[in-house]
Amino acid sequence: MLVVMSGDATQADAREIVALVESAGGEAFVSRGGNRTVVGLVGEAERLDAIGLHRMRGVERVARTSERYRLVSRVPGTDRSVVEVAGVPIGPGTVTLIAGPCAVETPEQTLEAARLARAAGAGLLRGGAYKPRTSPYAFQGLGERGLRILADVREETGLPVVTEVLSVCDVETVAGYADMLQIGTRNMQNFPLLQAVGEAGRPVLLKRGMHATVEEWLMAAEYIAQRGNLDIVLCERGIRTFETATRNTLDISAVPVVQRLSQLPVIVDPSHSAGRRDLVVPLSRAAVAAGADGVIADLHPRPEAALCDGPQALSGEDVPELARAIGDAARLMGRRTPGGLAGRGTPGDRRLVAV
Amino acid sequence: MLVVMSGDATQADAREIVALVESAGGEAFVSRGGNRTVVGLVGEAERLDAIGLHRMRGVERVARTSERYRLVSRVPGTDRSVVEVAGVPIGPGTVTLIAGPCAVETPEQTLEAARLARAAGAGLLRGGAYKPRTSPYAFQGLGERGLRILADVREETGLPVVTEVLSVCDVETVAGYADMLQIGTRNMQNFPLLQAVGEAGRPVLLKRGMHATVEEWLMAAEYIAQRGNLDIVLCERGIRTFETATRNTLDISAVPVVQRLSQLPVIVDPSHSAGRRDLVVPLSRAAVAAGADGVIADLHPRPEAALCDGPQALSGEDVPELARAIGDAARLMGRRTPGGLAGRGTPGDRRLVAV
Amino acid sequence: MLVVMSGDATQADAREIVALVESAGGEAFVSRGGNRTVVGLVGEAERLDAIGLHRMRGVERVARTSERYRLVSRVPGTDRSVVEVAGVPIGPGTVTLIAGPCAVETPEQTLEAARLARAAGAGLLRGGAYKPRTSPYAFQGLGERGLRILADVREETGLPVVTEVLSVCDVETVAGYADMLQIGTRNMQNFPLLQAVGEAGRPVLLKRGMHATVEEWLMAAEYIAQRGNLDIVLCERGIRTFETATRNTLDISAVPVVQRLSQLPVIVDPSHSAGRRDLVVPLSRAAVAAGADGVIADLHPRPEAALCDGPQALSGEDVPELARAIGDAARLMGRRTPGGLAGRGTPGDRRLVAV
Amino acid sequence: MLVVMSGDATQADAREIVALVESAGGEAFVSRGGNRTVVGLVGEAERLDAIGLHRMRGVERVARTSERYRLVSRVPGTDRSVVEVAGVPIGPGTVTLIAGPCAVETPEQTLEAARLARAAGAGLLRGGAYKPRTSPYAFQGLGERGLRILADVREETGLPVVTEVLSVCDVETVAGYADMLQIGTRNMQNFPLLQAVGEAGRPVLLKRGMHATVEEWLMAAEYIAQRGNLDIVLCERGIRTFETATRNTLDISAVPVVQRLSQLPVIVDPSHSAGRRDLVVPLSRAAVAAGADGVIADLHPRPEAALCDGPQALSGEDVPELARAIGDAARLMGRRTPGGLAGRGTPGDRRLVAV
Repeated sequence: MLVVMSGDATQADAREIVALVESAGGEAFVSRGGNRTVVGLVGEAERLDAIGLHRMRGVERVARTSERYRLVSRVPGTDRSVVEVAGVPIGPGTVTLIAGPCAVETPEQTLEAARLARAAGAGLLRGGAYKPRTSPYAFQGLGERGLRILADVREETGLPVVTEVLSVCDVETVAGYADMLQIGTRNMQNFPLLQAVGEAGRPVLLKRGMHATVEEWLMAAEYIAQRGNLDIVLCERGIRTFETATRNTLDISAVPVVQRLSQLPVIVDPSHSAGRRDLVVPLSRAAVAAGADGVIADLHPRPEAALCDGPQALSGEDVPELARAIGDAARLMGRRTPGGLAGRGTPGDRRLVAV
Repeated sequence: MLVVMSGDATQADAREIVALVESAGGEAFVSRGGNRTVVGLVGEAERLDAIGLHRMRGVERVARTSERYRLVSRVPGTDRSVVEVAGVPIGPGTVTLIAGPCAVETPEQTLEAARLARAAGAGLLRGGAYKPRTSPYAFQGLGERGLRILADVREETGLPVVTEVLSVCDVETVAGYADMLQIGTRNMQNFPLLQAVGEAGRPVLLKRGMHATVEEWLMAAEYIAQRGNLDIVLCERGIRTFETATRNTLDISAVPVVQRLSQLPVIVDPSHSAGRRDLVVPLSRAAVAAGADGVIADLHPRPEAALCDGPQALSGEDVPELARAIGDAARLMGRRTPGGLAGRGTPGDRRLVAV
Repeated sequence: MLVVMSGDATQADAREIVALVESAGGEAFVSRGGNRTVVGLVGEAERLDAIGLHRMRGVERVARTSERYRLVSRVPGTDRSVVEVAGVPIGPGTVTLIAGPCAVETPEQTLEAARLARAAGAGLLRGGAYKPRTSPYAFQGLGERGLRILADVREETGLPVVTEVLSVCDVETVAGYADMLQIGTRNMQNFPLLQAVGEAGRPVLLKRGMHATVEEWLMAAEYIAQRGNLDIVLCERGIRTFETATRNTLDISAVPVVQRLSQLPVIVDPSHSAGRRDLVVPLSRAAVAAGADGVIADLHPRPEAALCDGPQALSGEDVPELARAIGDAARLMGRRTPGGLAGRGTPGDRRLVAV
Repeated sequence: MLVVMSGDATQADAREIVALVESAGGEAFVSRGGNRTVVGLVGEAERLDAIGLHRMRGVERVARTSERYRLVSRVPGTDRSVVEVAGVPIGPGTVTLIAGPCAVETPEQTLEAARLARAAGAGLLRGGAYKPRTSPYAFQGLGERGLRILADVREETGLPVVTEVLSVCDVETVAGYADMLQIGTRNMQNFPLLQAVGEAGRPVLLKRGMHATVEEWLMAAEYIAQRGNLDIVLCERGIRTFETATRNTLDISAVPVVQRLSQLPVIVDPSHSAGRRDLVVPLSRAAVAAGADGVIADLHPRPEAALCDGPQALSGEDVPELARAIGDAARLMGRRTPGGLAGRGTPGDRRLVAV
């Protein structure tokens, strides 16, 4: 069962629900996001039905859930959530671009990439300071030095920062610098890490495991939510299949599938899905057209010299095309682009639609 | 090697090339489509280089191909092909909707479905008379009686007909009724069938095998082309992966990947990919936004009573949304919709973009 | 529902059951194998229950089946079937080796390969005259000339012949030469072909589709059985996955899974699974240890010169190791090796077990 | 490049090699296992070739490696490694059974399961105190209390303990109780955790990621080895595919593939591969016949009451069959069974081979 709290419910209201549920022998988990609070219940359904939860102060709805996840599920008839990252919204009314380098290499490279990101209409800057690499001999990221670079570039450009955290031990440090914590595909079922970011007080970007079903992905989100944090954005980044023409297979259907099952926003990563620069623009457009709430793309001032995933990074010359593709597709979907994407509806670019 | 013939080349020109190549100990395969003729060569590259092919009458270009397929490959710098089906174009300038019932059941059901298809803006009618079913106890299609129904409905509605052929023995019969022959996913590597439709004098719709790589799919097209027929449209219809939320996983990336490798048009089947009615519209929009040259969708007047694949069929009430989605997405891509899709650019439906 | 006929039931007995079922508004399909006859029923279960099938002459058992296949299912408490190919058994008491070249190339190569097969303990000779090739430019097999070579080599060596048929049009021709008809992985759901071999009067070797679930594979067998032929041997030959270290992924678990669901024998093809010569012996041993009723392996006198799949073929020098591996593993399982495998229990090779 | 040290080489010898490599501008990583020490080099191959490494004291061999991993690679012509866990060997001469409950639930259940394990011939006891569960509401293991139970049961039964560690924060605690640390499938690319167990001074059991290629799996082992620990045992536990008849698809071919590429022992987990009790015995036999160095199986005194993965656990009544299957298959392969498997070669059970 799931209790959706009303907009004006207080923390005390939620605590009273927890107390009532516990008195009936159940357990209750309060999860808060920027625009809603829900309480998930575990226990005997009949007993919990009988305690009059819908009469409690601050309760908007009490819903049964048939799915194994509950805090992150979508209660039929309710809107999907908006997650705000340092004021930048990700949710049903917008298409938010997150862009930046795969890895933070130098202050200059990061700043240049951030400027490209802003030119592309990005609302948020991505960039990795801790890099999960298949080989222990590959560049592993700059660590905390990279985080400081990201913070400086945020200062300079105004773009809030999304960056990956790999280890429970680093969560506090990364949360000290970043505006949003990213959980990578290889850590989607690193449960202690999910629990730690659930308690870190920052919105979380949860990438889908390359091997994970949609249900497992939502269960991973539930791990985060169960620790109190409902500000979670899901990111489809391709699954592993037999096809080798692309690095992974973008599961575009997962976008509408997830939106029917979960209240959480879902964005798409065309760069890691395809592993090929030439597919990033068409896949970004397809993602928005499928209903994605945003796109996250690799940008690098000099992809050929990138220390990580150069072949998939867009460069400066690709920026106008990316901006136009996302802007036009957002307009097709009747959505705003919070980062100020270049393609949006000024009279002059009316014709872009038909080009 | 591949010889692209000029628009005014004659059949005699092509025959002379074949003769020249054979005199040099090679083999040459002439493949003709509505808008181009190519000749594929097999033999020692150095010897073939030396015989002066580019000086022969009617030769536009002589190109080396590094891929294992050649007739269906895309020669850099040349346009992609347009395949015309009874006057309806499928190719780079258009978004063509093919719609209709999964299976032909009765004259009434087929006619009703065809009218829905036309209302949705379809340029072509799909419908199966020979159905490949997992179970021998399931409805296997009406056979030739189904073909006659399709022909009658074409008469009534003006929509040219696309229908599947399952067996070499039936190719001639099906080609006698249909405007376009469909090869289904389970027959993508049924090589004798590919060769037979390559000689049948009708455009071919070649669905991707659910297990096939892009390269294998293009090799299957090459089998058809090698028998002389270059009027082939590729159809991405989902591949088999571990994910069970959808029936198959739509490989949306295959659209731009194929367009870089092959001159052939490529369309998307959102119905068989997803196996779920509620995903057909978002996936159709995504397909067009990714660059697909068309969409093929299941429509049924009463999906709940369908003898085949009812859960994925759209019904009459879904038609306006499908028409609008494809029309708007086509306009986003600057393409025409040959079937006259409802959503296209009249001032009145400007607002549809933002709904 | 499924009716298992007793060993002494006559064709007239089966016909009477069909008549009785039809009189009750149902359908009945009689399927005969060398060691049993079954009748599969389609219709309303309650009505069929009421007509007293178990009292009919020649009826051993009447069983309900929950699976979608019925003729090929395993009735709990009954033995699995033995399929005899020109007197060579494949079934639960034996481990039968089928070996030979991937493709018939010349009389000499085929005869040499057959002698190697016999030396390896093979009970049957494999060899392709019609070859399904990914590329239309690759060697497509010798056709009927290849069949004649196989027949000559059978004469010379005494080994019955298993060979693939690709097209409905060739079934009669191939059945005129071969002792067993093979359906390849790409044709597992070529339903007209399945129906044709179901009527051809020869045992059938049905390879699993590289994309097929176990259930789909058994449904394909049901297509053959429904046309009257229950002499079907299933062959696991690897499925398609993301792993590229092997050509396909041998699904060894399918062996015991199928044996619980179906009465049909199941063998393993380690050559096409792995696509690597060095894995054939360990995978053959594993297959037998998992309970496989046989192994089918590629053998070629000169793999480096093979026109098809040379990298996976064993050569003469590998024969003793293959023979010993299969012979020893068969003994571990308490099974006979009908082809007379070299490794079997003479005192002298006792030590081979521990090498 | 890779330097294999001789058996009598000292730590000082290895340090001198590191110093020499560093003086040439390279990096060197010393990795030690119970039966060998290797030094992996990173740097310019030509420069490293020129410094005379083969003349250094304690050097047995200097080998070039073409693979991306080096410390865990197999130098052609050298034996595969033996990893000893509290005196119990896992390696090429033995078949070691590891058995026990999926999760430690109570002292009694764990002790009973350990006695079953010993009866089955196990050399090591498995049991999870920290459980990675798809759902945050599922039983998460007893934590350190579970570790104490395992230690008590080891005391009682003499079986060394293998147990999973989920988080960098727990490595020291778990290493304080366990004889071998297990890295689960979901953590195969949790790089900080791999590095931490690489420094923990205990042998490691590295399960293959359900989505991982063989190469990625060996790269994960390289992460552990690079931190100094070469006592790593690989465990194939099934990969994720489209087939749903089993929980995962056991990639039996990975056993011989890995043994050609890596010096590390490799064992098989039939319980998690199949997720079905009835497949554990045939898959165990197949694993040993394919060359596996051991088997790890779930055993539970009352599977129907298990808190985790009951459907795949063997119970007491399955123990004799498991013991016999592994014992007989080990004898087929000419290997010892260190735990004293019941089936082993006493004259009296000669007949077991043929049962």
